[in-house]
Amino acid sequence: MTAFFYLTIMKSILTVCSLLLVASAAAQTDVTLFDRHIDAQGAYIVEEFVSLLKIPNVAYDLPNINKNAQYIMGELTDRGISTQLLEHPGTPPIVYGYLESKKATRTLAFYVHYDGQPVDKTRWKHDPWTPKMYDKSLADGGVEIPFPKEGEKIDPVSRIYARSAGDDKGPIIGILAAIDAMQAEGIEPTSNFVFFFEGQEEAGSEHLRSYLEDHSKLLEAIDLWMFCDGPIHQSRKPQLVFGVRGVTGFEVTTYGSNRSLHSGHYGNWAPVPGQMLSSLIASMKDENGNVSIEGFYDDVDPLSTYEIESMANIPQIDAQLKKELGLNDTEGSETLYERLLYPSLTIKGINSGKVGTKARNVIPASATASIGIRLVKGNDPDKMIDLAEKHMVKQGYHIVREDPDEATRLAYPKIAKVVRGHGYPAARTSMNNPHAQHIVSRVQEVVGEDLILLPTLGGSLPLYLFTDVLKKPALVVPIANHDNNQHAANENIRIENLWYGIKLIGAIMTMAPE
Amino acid sequence: MTAFFYLTIMKSILTVCSLLLVASAAAQTDVTLFDRHIDAQGAYIVEEFVSLLKIPNVAYDLPNINKNAQYIMGELTDRGISTQLLEHPGTPPIVYGYLESKKATRTLAFYVHYDGQPVDKTRWKHDPWTPKMYDKSLADGGVEIPFPKEGEKIDPVSRIYARSAGDDKGPIIGILAAIDAMQAEGIEPTSNFVFFFEGQEEAGSEHLRSYLEDHSKLLEAIDLWMFCDGPIHQSRKPQLVFGVRGVTGFEVTTYGSNRSLHSGHYGNWAPVPGQMLSSLIASMKDENGNVSIEGFYDDVDPLSTYEIESMANIPQIDAQLKKELGLNDTEGSETLYERLLYPSLTIKGINSGKVGTKARNVIPASATASIGIRLVKGNDPDKMIDLAEKHMVKQGYHIVREDPDEATRLAYPKIAKVVRGHGYPAARTSMNNPHAQHIVSRVQEVVGEDLILLPTLGGSLPLYLFTDVLKKPALVVPIANHDNNQHAANENIRIENLWYGIKLIGAIMTMAPE
Repeated sequence: MTAFFYLTIMKSILTVCSLLLVASAAAQTDVTLFDRHIDAQGAYIVEEFVSLLKIPNVAYDLPNINKNAQYIMGELTDRGISTQLLEHPGTPPIVYGYLESKKATRTLAFYVHYDGQPVDKTRWKHDPWTPKMYDKSLADGGVEIPFPKEGEKIDPVSRIYARSAGDDKGPIIGILAAIDAMQAEGIEPTSNFVFFFEGQEEAGSEHLRSYLEDHSKLLEAIDLWMFCDGPIHQSRKPQLVFGVRGVTGFEVTTYGSNRSLHSGHYGNWAPVPGQMLSSLIASMKDENGNVSIEGFYDDVDPLSTYEIESMANIPQIDAQLKKELGLNDTEGSETLYERLLYPSLTIKGINSGKVGTKARNVIPASATASIGIRLVKGNDPDKMIDLAEKHMVKQGYHIVREDPDEATRLAYPKIAKVVRGHGYPAARTSMNNPHAQHIVSRVQEVVGEDLILLPTLGGSLPLYLFTDVLKKPALVVPIANHDNNQHAANENIRIENLWYGIKLIGAIMTMAPE
Repeated sequence: MTAFFYLTIMKSILTVCSLLLVASAAAQTDVTLFDRHIDAQGAYIVEEFVSLLKIPNVAYDLPNINKNAQYIMGELTDRGISTQLLEHPGTPPIVYGYLESKKATRTLAFYVHYDGQPVDKTRWKHDPWTPKMYDKSLADGGVEIPFPKEGEKIDPVSRIYARSAGDDKGPIIGILAAIDAMQAEGIEPTSNFVFFFEGQEEAGSEHLRSYLEDHSKLLEAIDLWMFCDGPIHQSRKPQLVFGVRGVTGFEVTTYGSNRSLHSGHYGNWAPVPGQMLSSLIASMKDENGNVSIEGFYDDVDPLSTYEIESMANIPQIDAQLKKELGLNDTEGSETLYERLLYPSLTIKGINSGKVGTKARNVIPASATASIGIRLVKGNDPDKMIDLAEKHMVKQGYHIVREDPDEATRLAYPKIAKVVRGHGYPAARTSMNNPHAQHIVSRVQEVVGEDLILLPTLGGSLPLYLFTDVLKKPALVVPIANHDNNQHAANENIRIENLWYGIKLIGAIMTMAPE
């Protein structure tokens, strides 16, 4: 009997059991339950994960995206969870599931995305949708090993390589396995759970807002959202994250002559767009890496004392990071985590003329910079670009939206075309939120004092749709190893992190009632 | 009898005549001689020019380059000029010619280059080596017209389009036609003439120095060099140019992390190479477009009073140029010609990351600028880069020659890789030089008070090889129209400029003896 057959039968039995469950076991459950489940069912969990990873999942590949959704729907339904496919024509559907617990006094939601980044197969060691297992990280010389057989002990440092192994199919398996473990021992969750699996995250979650608006009824009872996405801390310590930075930006182009000019015939007389742009960029930041644009830091929401204190528990990784990244110095004098509490302005790209062997003896006609802005709680994306524009005006620039015509060129000595980006704000949930506090306590119980509480990630997710549009608290609950090669070739998950995910989700599902 | 046959016979007769000439006509000749020759022989001159333009002439195409050299040799020999092909294996040869005049007290040299820029045929209206004639500039809607028949009047605004029509085969025909005109009327030149036709100018004159050194004996009697190259003034007024700027430059790269970083996870903490490079570039120039590098203007050789006064005759083209180029303002407050008397620093290219649709949310690992420096008389190319490097050190940079290794990265907060260019110095001949003064007077006689005396071109030619290495005065004697599309597609010469070239060269060949 293969593990697969065995478990299909087991699942059916458990589904029946769960329906018959007496809702008595509302007290907090010992999380060793999940360790036992992993010990007994590790090979099966891996097998189920591999089946999911085999389905290609790039957001624009709708036939395969739908296969993923159907597969996940089936797995949820098999476990007695009521499911719905939320569909907007031509977009990846949302897999919605609801697990009700009769005595629950709260409803918690798990958000996971099942789509993955597009792949460049030439950079992968093997096909991204043919999962393989290695005894350790490929970067450390990992060797392929067979998938585990039933009952076989699985080395926690071994890894599964496939697209979305780390980002973000792992938590789906974590949820399924945690439910299996509870159902196997007749334990009912202590909260109602909503499962919300998106299929367009890596393509920008373009339709997420309308999905949330159109199905608001299904979501209104939710007390807190958990985003199972992203990696745990670089120190391999677990973390809960209370916010993300927002993102916006703009492109600015400065102009010289209406055509590129011979640098000999006109050099020292004709305006040099690369010089003008450099001066403009230089004026935006001071010597210490702080932004000089007036008002740039004015709207930053301060942290509470509790949040500031909790940051003391974050491992100091600056020295190690600087060494890894080959840096003698950084912007500002604070640590990375302190700096991430502020908005940032970074030059993502500059282009004017050519460099290297393609450089020519010309004064180019224009110079363009792509400038990124990350936002923190309190910052409005549009206002931040307004401030940057005001700064440019102060530097003497006339701002245009299209390349200037001749009349405009002749009228203004300094012209900047600004193409404004469309961004979204940061989101941050207070660490003092009571639902969040319950989760913090439970996770600390599981992982001990190691737990890192991070006020915000440096990166961006459209978490504001939940915190600011739906007005619900939201946490990021990462599971994957930091070296999972997220978005890149040879994406992977460390087995230890997959087990951690199951245990973490199981712990939250079975924590003390409110 | 075709014009060609007629003229071949005529040339043979004239060659014999010239050999029999009594060296009596040493007095200054009336230049209307050349007008009459043009009127009578215009169609033939065009035909001879077309034959020369038909031979492809890109410097690396040695078989065709040699055809050009052989053709020019033949034309010189036919006119009784003693010729030599100066050859270095694998390089375009120099066509050397010497025309002795028994009573001459000076020797003047004409430098012309017979090679042309490479072509992008897709941008040409017709094959670059299939010359065609148009009734006016293509830019003004010119229509193709047949080449003129013998005796036919040729409209001076009509143009011949072909590679090197403007840059630089015109003066070769100018020399040949001027000699024809003199020989037809039995007039002997008033100076000895050296003809020096280079075939590698557009490819950087890499071997020019060694040609000059190896054949120094042939050149030692020369009193003044005339460089028939480049265009006349934009106002279509004739000009003599007494110098060129030199050229050098460098590339500078600034470094952030050893790999590009996520702009969210690290933005506001990781150094941003584009920001660093911008600040560095900004520090190199002040608000008025003047270079802030210490010592940048220290070595500039001042002009004499005569030279400063002669500049008053230069047409003020700044207002017109600014309108044409779409500029409200320029660097500095002086005119173009005043600004060209100083060294310049221009940003030829900047590159870091990507802009536009290719922009990504990263902090690139490095940023590079290609920086050009033009030099004036007094500046040493290497010293100017030294000054720029000293400036960078003052800005806190540690300078390296290769991408930094990890130890270097960790040791220095600001690292700049500087790749130094190989340039050459400016050259300028004093307007007070007596040989130059003779030429100025003679040309003024021909063209009147319109003649512009320009202390220097903004652009660069390796004229220093003549002024500084051979230690001879050198003038640039341009002939082509400014809108000849030099180096670009649809290169051309205006017939009026071709005629001007013949008359100018003829006038110089027959000016009063010293």
